Amino acid sequence: MVKVAICAPGKRIERERADAVLDMVAGDAEIDLKFHPQCFARHGHFAGDDAQRLAAFLECANDPAVDAVWFAMGGYGANRIAADALAGLTEAAREKAFLGYSDNGYLLGALYRAAIGRPVHAPLVGDIRRDGGDKAIKRVTDWLKGEKDGLEPTIAGQPVAAFNLTTLAMLVGTELMPDLSDHVVMVEEVAEHLYAVDRLFFHVTQHLAQQNIAGLRLGRVSDVPENDRPFGSSPVEIAQYWCAKTGISYLGLADIGHDEANKIVPFGLAGSRSPA
Amino acid sequence: MVKVAICAPGKRIERERADAVLDMVAGDAEIDLKFHPQCFARHGHFAGDDAQRLAAFLECANDPAVDAVWFAMGGYGANRIAADALAGLTEAAREKAFLGYSDNGYLLGALYRAAIGRPVHAPLVGDIRRDGGDKAIKRVTDWLKGEKDGLEPTIAGQPVAAFNLTTLAMLVGTELMPDLSDHVVMVEEVAEHLYAVDRLFFHVTQHLAQQNIAGLRLGRVSDVPENDRPFGSSPVEIAQYWCAKTGISYLGLADIGHDEANKIVPFGLAGSRSPA
Repeated sequence: MVKVAICAPGKRIERERADAVLDMVAGDAEIDLKFHPQCFARHGHFAGDDAQRLAAFLECANDPAVDAVWFAMGGYGANRIAADALAGLTEAAREKAFLGYSDNGYLLGALYRAAIGRPVHAPLVGDIRRDGGDKAIKRVTDWLKGEKDGLEPTIAGQPVAAFNLTTLAMLVGTELMPDLSDHVVMVEEVAEHLYAVDRLFFHVTQHLAQQNIAGLRLGRVSDVPENDRPFGSSPVEIAQYWCAKTGISYLGLADIGHDEANKIVPFGLAGSRSPA
Repeated sequence: MVKVAICAPGKRIERERADAVLDMVAGDAEIDLKFHPQCFARHGHFAGDDAQRLAAFLECANDPAVDAVWFAMGGYGANRIAADALAGLTEAAREKAFLGYSDNGYLLGALYRAAIGRPVHAPLVGDIRRDGGDKAIKRVTDWLKGEKDGLEPTIAGQPVAAFNLTTLAMLVGTELMPDLSDHVVMVEEVAEHLYAVDRLFFHVTQHLAQQNIAGLRLGRVSDVPENDRPFGSSPVEIAQYWCAKTGISYLGLADIGHDEANKIVPFGLAGSRSPA
């Protein structure tokens, strides 16, 4: 039985989505999901104020009976609690998996920097809302039970990390940023104009080049808004351009993105690292 | 006679706006404005491709007969040519003023880092399109002729610099970023959600704190898009929050922004630094 505690470092999750995920695992004797009540809290933009979101994260992460902490939603807000969250972790957090993506990348990055637990880029509980979202949920629960099918397929013998591009751009150079030297770094983006993607790549590649990463892979850049004029380069061309400028190896595509197909990327070296 | 060369490192300017500005100074024997033809070029998102925009900037900056280089528009693109632009400057660039803001902050920052010329946060030629835009244009031409009325009113005995917040967030930690230690740093933003402003402040304050700046001033945060839920903090509260978190002195408001009232901030120490 893998015990999973769910909290929401950014945005709240709608109750019916949580219920849909609970229904999915109701007959599964190997998975126990528990939503922290904070998941449904509301404070302006956030699932509760900073203190509430921080407390819920720490209750989940420091519970010795829990095997994994799964983030309910992305949104915005994990960066506001990440430094305090790290400072509040106890021994009980050290062997847990922490799963999520998008805005939760601040926490995954900070955990990885501190070598606490196993940060894992993976679908969120709230991905149930997508067409085929049940597949994203099953990918996570299967991985938690020890299956490997949901792993991002290019993961091989090198350490890896995966981030939303905007999140990584805000992370670089801060007290939360992990050392990604020799890592294959995967990035994905959603709902940004291509000129903004280009701008983020300018920033991120300069920082990653300073870290001597092994190379960069591009996940999906989806839901690009229509602009008043075409940008003139595709996402792949943008990634290749800035990688070439900064001496980073562009390694091709990664199977991650803001969609139901988003694959699992355990930070660091691959291997049998699920809680099962 | 102050000779001013105009180029467009990002977006093109519409011909009728250029003409309106030429009309304004037509009777002024002290100002000579010359639009580089590149200002009207078109290449996807940009006023010509990177090579064209770079060449135009260098022609203006390296022309010994020119006293000041004024940027026509913001948009996006200055960061793509800034490193090559700096590498291509000659002695003739060293005493010029370079005027603009928004996306042109990449060039202003890089020039300041290299101690080449006098970077000046100031209205763009294209600001003529705003209600009362003629006042913004006159503010620049008056400053070029030696008047001081258009200077940002809080400028005092400390070195200053001013940036668009997104531009500064993309600049920090890169090869273009100047040393802003002991500077009063002013930031302004336009058309960003407040959660994005908060996220940018998280990133920028962490970097500026590492530089030991003298303090931060907040310009206008304008045209904030409606969000599906309120953010819960005002721009001033956001600035104060992140300054407090990172040990930066929050010094109050600055009279800059994406509007016709946008005041002039010559980088560095104030004084009689206009070309007149």
